[in-house]
Amino acid sequence: MGSPLRVGIAGLGTVGAGVLRVLHDNGAAIAMRAGREIKVTAVSSRDRSKDRGVSLDGLNWHDNAVSLASDEDVDVVVELIGGSDGIAKDLVESALANAKHVVTANKALIAHHGLELAETAERNPVALAYEAAVAGGIPIIKALREGLAANTIDGVHGILNGTCNYILTSMAESGRPFDEVLAEAQELGYAETDPSFDVDGIDTAHKLAILASVAFGTKVDFDAVFVEGIRHVSPVDIDFAEKLGYGIKLLGVAKRREEGIEQRVHPCMVPIASPINHVSGVFNGVVVDGDFIDTTIYEGRGAGAGPTASAVVADLIDIARESQIPTFGVGVNDLSPTQTIPMSGHVGPYYIRLMVVDKPGVFADIAGCLKNHNVSMGSVLQQSRDPGEPVPVVMTVHETEERAMVLMLKEIEALDTIVEKPVMIRVETF
Amino acid sequence: MGSPLRVGIAGLGTVGAGVLRVLHDNGAAIAMRAGREIKVTAVSSRDRSKDRGVSLDGLNWHDNAVSLASDEDVDVVVELIGGSDGIAKDLVESALANAKHVVTANKALIAHHGLELAETAERNPVALAYEAAVAGGIPIIKALREGLAANTIDGVHGILNGTCNYILTSMAESGRPFDEVLAEAQELGYAETDPSFDVDGIDTAHKLAILASVAFGTKVDFDAVFVEGIRHVSPVDIDFAEKLGYGIKLLGVAKRREEGIEQRVHPCMVPIASPINHVSGVFNGVVVDGDFIDTTIYEGRGAGAGPTASAVVADLIDIARESQIPTFGVGVNDLSPTQTIPMSGHVGPYYIRLMVVDKPGVFADIAGCLKNHNVSMGSVLQQSRDPGEPVPVVMTVHETEERAMVLMLKEIEALDTIVEKPVMIRVETF
Repeated sequence: MGSPLRVGIAGLGTVGAGVLRVLHDNGAAIAMRAGREIKVTAVSSRDRSKDRGVSLDGLNWHDNAVSLASDEDVDVVVELIGGSDGIAKDLVESALANAKHVVTANKALIAHHGLELAETAERNPVALAYEAAVAGGIPIIKALREGLAANTIDGVHGILNGTCNYILTSMAESGRPFDEVLAEAQELGYAETDPSFDVDGIDTAHKLAILASVAFGTKVDFDAVFVEGIRHVSPVDIDFAEKLGYGIKLLGVAKRREEGIEQRVHPCMVPIASPINHVSGVFNGVVVDGDFIDTTIYEGRGAGAGPTASAVVADLIDIARESQIPTFGVGVNDLSPTQTIPMSGHVGPYYIRLMVVDKPGVFADIAGCLKNHNVSMGSVLQQSRDPGEPVPVVMTVHETEERAMVLMLKEIEALDTIVEKPVMIRVETF
Repeated sequence: MGSPLRVGIAGLGTVGAGVLRVLHDNGAAIAMRAGREIKVTAVSSRDRSKDRGVSLDGLNWHDNAVSLASDEDVDVVVELIGGSDGIAKDLVESALANAKHVVTANKALIAHHGLELAETAERNPVALAYEAAVAGGIPIIKALREGLAANTIDGVHGILNGTCNYILTSMAESGRPFDEVLAEAQELGYAETDPSFDVDGIDTAHKLAILASVAFGTKVDFDAVFVEGIRHVSPVDIDFAEKLGYGIKLLGVAKRREEGIEQRVHPCMVPIASPINHVSGVFNGVVVDGDFIDTTIYEGRGAGAGPTASAVVADLIDIARESQIPTFGVGVNDLSPTQTIPMSGHVGPYYIRLMVVDKPGVFADIAGCLKNHNVSMGSVLQQSRDPGEPVPVVMTVHETEERAMVLMLKEIEALDTIVEKPVMIRVETF
């Protein structure tokens, strides 16, 4: 057995304490698998005195996390501070520059600065590993960078944020509105006090940008991701979706097309029988389509101390085994620029819901707008309401370019029989 | 970029030709990912003149596959001949002994001789890789050996044979009996002319033995696997199962218990809403439970040229990258013997179906048998039939030890109101 791999951990919150626990509970088996002991030698955290259920005796303590990067007893820095900039970025940059490997759970950091960090890692040369950054308990980065490496990947899509999936699942099961379910999720600890990173789709977008880069061998490009959250999804739409044979999920979708790469995060209507629609509650699910494997599906817990710590330690085991995988699957010079298809160029079926005053001629006006933009109607549903109240008119339309949809909905919204902003949800048929 | 990795392929059937096609179609991207070219330099097959759609010009041709093991232009032998003994075994043994890496899709070989082959691989030291042997398109060996390596694995279960899953899915959808659906599957090429390896559970057992070894770090032990196939599953049981809220799947199940390891292959009743019940048709699915990840699920195509070739080439890429993973995740000396729990010691709920003559007192007799063996009844279903015809009586029983079930069913079978051998299907609640 070789000499121990010496680890410095920055951030001893839930995940950091989880990493200590994994290495403590399963240390002997991990050493057998890694071929050497994986030993925490240094830590940094805000609060030295807090009880974490694990002894920190004999470990080098750093008040300033960045100084872990120059600790001579550290071979690998584990960054669990979070945030795309500030201390996390300083620490990771310095560690790589000092030829220390880095393991991180920080999706914002990799989505925003992954390319320059990968360059630094390659130059020194050390590993920059981030399995924990995407879909915690699911080894999806390893699947894409290694397990499916024989394939040309055509697309990746998935449920990458447990908070949103919990909220949508709970809305579907209970019929309650978004705000109420969010408040409950916050009480249960499934959603943050400031929920916007989750419910506005930003967290999903960070993860999608990373997945797309690894899947397609492109330069990670967060700004190329179209992002729309779930705040506007209402129980009535979930209900109509079900009647039409669909569930509503917040998906990250990355697809390779002839003209370029589509990267988008938004609520999707997916067929009720599709595998991704069966992924419920706080679970994450990722579907990968490749030219030789066809379709593969991965499900598991996306967050929480255990799954995230498991991913961090798997990266440490790889480093201990001296596995040499370029950060994004191929060398930085082999990554191609992302040729982005803008959202206005997206083509697909759509669901729309209009709230109309039920008067003669209403439907002819709406149909006229569809015709003006060459939009072809699929199914229509109309529910009756109390007389005088606005009536929801729901329809699906066949494959349409998004730019035509936007123009058409503007025209529909301007009709004086339309009393609310139309709702549009993209349909995925996979 | 390093010097090319030189590959010799033994067996140019569907999968062998698939490997040639993957390396041809995606060669440039694969070289980027592997850090060097992966180049086929030698082949062996039964028929030299057959058109495989890929040119064999310039490759060393071996009439005798075993001589690939001493070809000086070969770094890795890919064994695609099949069979647990004979040429396949001779070739793999010789190749490893000659310090050539081996990649194989041969589950029978690894299930029966994996331990001694791993010893030879370790001694020389070269890689023995077999991702393609289990659940083709799903990188489950990589997930267990690497992605989830931080965990103590508590259990693995899965649908590992596409033929059986196709037959059971088709029986459930159409209500037709086993023989009819099997004949159809044979016509469609989903089942072999001699289907016994598939439908009698042997293929699943080979794969389960491998998964169990990698999951638990135990010496692979095919003989420790209890095996029961699907020939006795009838449409009436599928129908009753559905009424009780279950689907019927052929599963391989490996569980770690305090007293040892359970390894068993048999039809299972699984809850209709469970992820494994959603895996239908020729798809495979594997569920892994670990102490820190909780539950993760993997689905994909288990067989076919594309998925299997993808797995073979992924192994080649790992070898090209000089990834060093022991055959079963830890060194041969660290593998523990399998402490097997015999099937008679299995404890779980059961489904039983009895065909009875409907006379007064019948039910009291049956209930008496349950009582004699301390078996506690769950739910009961009785369907009426034409007068004079035997009536099916279906029941589930709570957690019972299998040895008690067997004795009780013998007693029930001996009742003169019982007209057929009782049917027993194990229930899994996961």
